[in-house]
Amino acid sequence: MPTPYELYYWPNIPGRGEFVRLVLEEAATPYRDVGRLPAEEGGGTAAVVAFWAGKHEGHPVFAPPVLKQGDLLLSQTAAIGHFLGSRHDLAPRDEAGQAQALALQLTIADLVVEAHDTHHPVSAWLYYEDQQVEARRRAPHFVGERMPRFLQYFERVLRHNGGDVLAGKSLSHADLGLFQALEGLAYAFPRGFAAASEETPGVLALRERVRERPRIAAYLASERRVPFNQEGIFRRYPELDAD
Amino acid sequence: MPTPYELYYWPNIPGRGEFVRLVLEEAATPYRDVGRLPAEEGGGTAAVVAFWAGKHEGHPVFAPPVLKQGDLLLSQTAAIGHFLGSRHDLAPRDEAGQAQALALQLTIADLVVEAHDTHHPVSAWLYYEDQQVEARRRAPHFVGERMPRFLQYFERVLRHNGGDVLAGKSLSHADLGLFQALEGLAYAFPRGFAAASEETPGVLALRERVRERPRIAAYLASERRVPFNQEGIFRRYPELDAD
Repeated sequence: MPTPYELYYWPNIPGRGEFVRLVLEEAATPYRDVGRLPAEEGGGTAAVVAFWAGKHEGHPVFAPPVLKQGDLLLSQTAAIGHFLGSRHDLAPRDEAGQAQALALQLTIADLVVEAHDTHHPVSAWLYYEDQQVEARRRAPHFVGERMPRFLQYFERVLRHNGGDVLAGKSLSHADLGLFQALEGLAYAFPRGFAAASEETPGVLALRERVRERPRIAAYLASERRVPFNQEGIFRRYPELDAD
Repeated sequence: MPTPYELYYWPNIPGRGEFVRLVLEEAATPYRDVGRLPAEEGGGTAAVVAFWAGKHEGHPVFAPPVLKQGDLLLSQTAAIGHFLGSRHDLAPRDEAGQAQALALQLTIADLVVEAHDTHHPVSAWLYYEDQQVEARRRAPHFVGERMPRFLQYFERVLRHNGGDVLAGKSLSHADLGLFQALEGLAYAFPRGFAAASEETPGVLALRERVRERPRIAAYLASERRVPFNQEGIFRRYPELDAD
């Protein structure tokens, strides 16, 4: 039996860790979500902080999420998705197809950064309340221009690839990543997302197909799923949404 | 003979295209830098715009840079680096090592985004002059906190890996990416970079080793190299640099 994976990520937000969890859940591979374990079992925020502060053994990582398996320490959400996807049949089998799925996951990561920066345009180290003026300048461009551009892009990719999945012939980590990003956008920008996604029925249908996959549905209904909240990447500030 | 690669990127800035060029040059593989060819040969900005506007044949891409080889169209700088690196002996050979190099390249990409956003904190679609107030709020945090954190991280990675290269036993696309990012930081923030890099001698030594590699040295001395300028990711605005 292979060593189970360990995920290190902040316990109180879905954040980027959630992109990794979805891949682990769909892969049906055992993993310990260390940040969400009690401190008595070596879990909690303290276990995660070490990977933020550079105070851990082994290959240095820049920031959580971190995937650990034995001696392997891997950071960067998209790299983890690519690695797990290629290992667990959640990526195309050929080199070029794997690179395409990775590029799609990276485009999703770009979308996630831009969504985050609507509420933190000046610095992730300042409170939202201290950059609200700048946020109100940045958000309309994201909601009105960028989010639609991203959604329309994924719609084109789906259509080009036959309509069912973003890359290859079956579900990949990129589809799971898009699902999570769509959930986040719908949470954070209910009005803007509803308007933008009207023109991307294929993207909306993919979101529902992912949601209904047995393992994903079971996960979403479980306590393992971390709900969106006002601490994470996707936050619902009505003043930043479309009118 | 394999079909030569084509790179599609804006001709007037180094930008993210330069990260791809360095890998192609070190790989000593033939490529056409289409954006920099004359319009009569199908080159120039018009050839690149198609990949920005979604008006091209084949697999949809979100934005340049784009690598094309026959039917293959691949976007996202880090995915291109990973793909070319794995093919051309500029990445570790094992799956885990390749994922590590990719994670490093992605951390470099994060650094690049943060450097860019010092001068475009509100929107990449507004002029710098229209977001100068916000830029002056964002830049000090990057110069004083984030840039040093990134440099110290790469210093730790180098030390952990034996001092010569970031990943594996020989030069990878991640080392080339770090070289370009360092060149950009030194251009954009001469004072801040000098101060921050005083504490990262290993990183500075790697930069020089990359610069002196025969193929890279020949490239840097050629007209193929696109110099930094005030249109790209890395811009020299003295008011955003350290005092």
